[in-house]
Amino acid sequence: MSLDPRADLPDLLQQLMDLESVSGAEGPLADEVERVLRGCGHLEVLRDGDTVVARTQLGREERVVVAGHLDTVPVAGNLPSQRREVDGVDAVWGRGACDMKGGVAVQLALAVELAEPTRDVTWVFYDNEEVEAERNGLGRVARTHPEWLEGSFAVLGEPSNARVEGGCQGTLRVEITLTGTAAHSARAWMGHNAVHDAAEVLQRLRDYQPRQVEVEGLRYHEGLNAVRISGGIAGNVIPDRCVVEVNFRFAPDRSEDEAVAFVTDFFAPLPVEVTDLSPGARPGLDRPAAAQFLAAVGGEPQAKFGWTDVARFSALGVPAVNFGPGNPSKAHADDEFCPVADLRTCADALRRWLS
Amino acid sequence: MSLDPRADLPDLLQQLMDLESVSGAEGPLADEVERVLRGCGHLEVLRDGDTVVARTQLGREERVVVAGHLDTVPVAGNLPSQRREVDGVDAVWGRGACDMKGGVAVQLALAVELAEPTRDVTWVFYDNEEVEAERNGLGRVARTHPEWLEGSFAVLGEPSNARVEGGCQGTLRVEITLTGTAAHSARAWMGHNAVHDAAEVLQRLRDYQPRQVEVEGLRYHEGLNAVRISGGIAGNVIPDRCVVEVNFRFAPDRSEDEAVAFVTDFFAPLPVEVTDLSPGARPGLDRPAAAQFLAAVGGEPQAKFGWTDVARFSALGVPAVNFGPGNPSKAHADDEFCPVADLRTCADALRRWLS
Repeated sequence: MSLDPRADLPDLLQQLMDLESVSGAEGPLADEVERVLRGCGHLEVLRDGDTVVARTQLGREERVVVAGHLDTVPVAGNLPSQRREVDGVDAVWGRGACDMKGGVAVQLALAVELAEPTRDVTWVFYDNEEVEAERNGLGRVARTHPEWLEGSFAVLGEPSNARVEGGCQGTLRVEITLTGTAAHSARAWMGHNAVHDAAEVLQRLRDYQPRQVEVEGLRYHEGLNAVRISGGIAGNVIPDRCVVEVNFRFAPDRSEDEAVAFVTDFFAPLPVEVTDLSPGARPGLDRPAAAQFLAAVGGEPQAKFGWTDVARFSALGVPAVNFGPGNPSKAHADDEFCPVADLRTCADALRRWLS
Repeated sequence: MSLDPRADLPDLLQQLMDLESVSGAEGPLADEVERVLRGCGHLEVLRDGDTVVARTQLGREERVVVAGHLDTVPVAGNLPSQRREVDGVDAVWGRGACDMKGGVAVQLALAVELAEPTRDVTWVFYDNEEVEAERNGLGRVARTHPEWLEGSFAVLGEPSNARVEGGCQGTLRVEITLTGTAAHSARAWMGHNAVHDAAEVLQRLRDYQPRQVEVEGLRYHEGLNAVRISGGIAGNVIPDRCVVEVNFRFAPDRSEDEAVAFVTDFFAPLPVEVTDLSPGARPGLDRPAAAQFLAAVGGEPQAKFGWTDVARFSALGVPAVNFGPGNPSKAHADDEFCPVADLRTCADALRRWLS
């Protein structure tokens, strides 16, 4: 199947979706995207694994980055794509419609169309966003070719209802392991029940009051939650081990170290083991490129609560926002869809900003 | 391999062990036990599946039952058996030595030896004690041929350090399921965390004070414990379900219904679901046969905390005690063993009682 970047946006989106690209199997889609971009005289095309980067080299004063990932979570009987009405709205339905081939369709169409943008643009199509962080294509390029991602501002086309969502919250995962002494449950007093000791951990979490804080005009909302608990090996054995996994989502005014310190202090004297940590990203809406972007897009920017790859740009010193078609709550859903109107809204806004 | 029931007890025990009989595969051992018993003119031999029953028919005033199971938990590199010193004591080592081919060796030797016991004796060798209750051979015979198990008193040769352990505690398992509302952990306030709600369950368990109670002169010790807890499906999802499995070990002065009522009341208003329930057994030491047994055996009887098949006899109206060689804490251990002295102590006591 070949892509036609000049097709109507919903048609292009369906072409992108029907070229399946579950994480790790983006090759055929990346090849096709590369072929399309190499056909454009105004673009320099680079490739690293299944990440394709295309950029104008017009010598503009400013360079901006527009990025999106090519991969999807596994297909769940929701391909091939369909054009159908959902909740009374004209939409494209199926795996990837929302997360995030809608955004990819917009950026691929504009990369081909805008031969002389007012800012130099680097278009990034990357692999493996939906899997472990170490496989993330954007992270890999940031390590191996950081110069490919240079710019004064970045737009990530993750679904945001075609509204600007600024920054993102950080995420920290820790494990708290309670230990006891195993015994036969018929002689429980010879052991010490580690699961019972988890009462203290859970009670503190229950009493926790989430902090809400404004950062650069956007309101963030933190959260501290047990996301998993497990203990016990048999119905007649006093558990000698219970593990509580806790996820802390923290506003971007805290550094990674500050987040770890908060959680460590929160559970003290119980030891916490950090298993996963990703920094948040400040919105960066005070930068000139961001202000012009906001003016072109219109509307009030919102805080982004979830973690997204804007944090990778932030770590490279490039302020970034999320701006893409589709409702983020439909990401990964079996009934994933993207309203056609969102596709047009996003394409029009980016075109205004770059023309 | 053939059994020689007149061999020295530790040798007979090794023969029994080396004829592997993991639950469900007791056939060859049951065949061999049946062959040996059929060779005794003083015994009537019956068989149901892999359970072998042999009984004298001397017309005595009283009939007693001596029972043991033929099966073991899976072998763990601890066969063939060995005669070796353990902790300075002459012992037989390997799978089944303790649980409970030591007891089986004693009862097989005496079944052959005692042609004219002072009480009629029913010797029961049964299958599938170490697996799900519904497969238990003693339970099966109790359903299909309850008359085979009739008697005024029963001795179960489970390991008890060659001391009499009376009755057994009952065991009840319940599940308490907390339910919430799933949400992405970046927007936790849109959900309700079911794991946090388990704090209440665990705190009550932590505060629980176990009851100790004397029943017919033996002191029982109850226990109420979480034996398993699980909740959560992913590191970024607020759990909408958390299940706590609780095991209540109750003294034999409570009926099954009373045990369920206690636990239901303990966790109210949280609903509890009963997943497993086995009644306890009163010691029955006030019966004449029991008194004579105690006199023959000597020593102070102890309460049995764990659940054993004495409860099945109790349910049939036959008071029963545990009395067998080996330390119950070595049951199922990889370094299972049985002191040779325990074998001789048990055999001598039963011989005194029945001669």
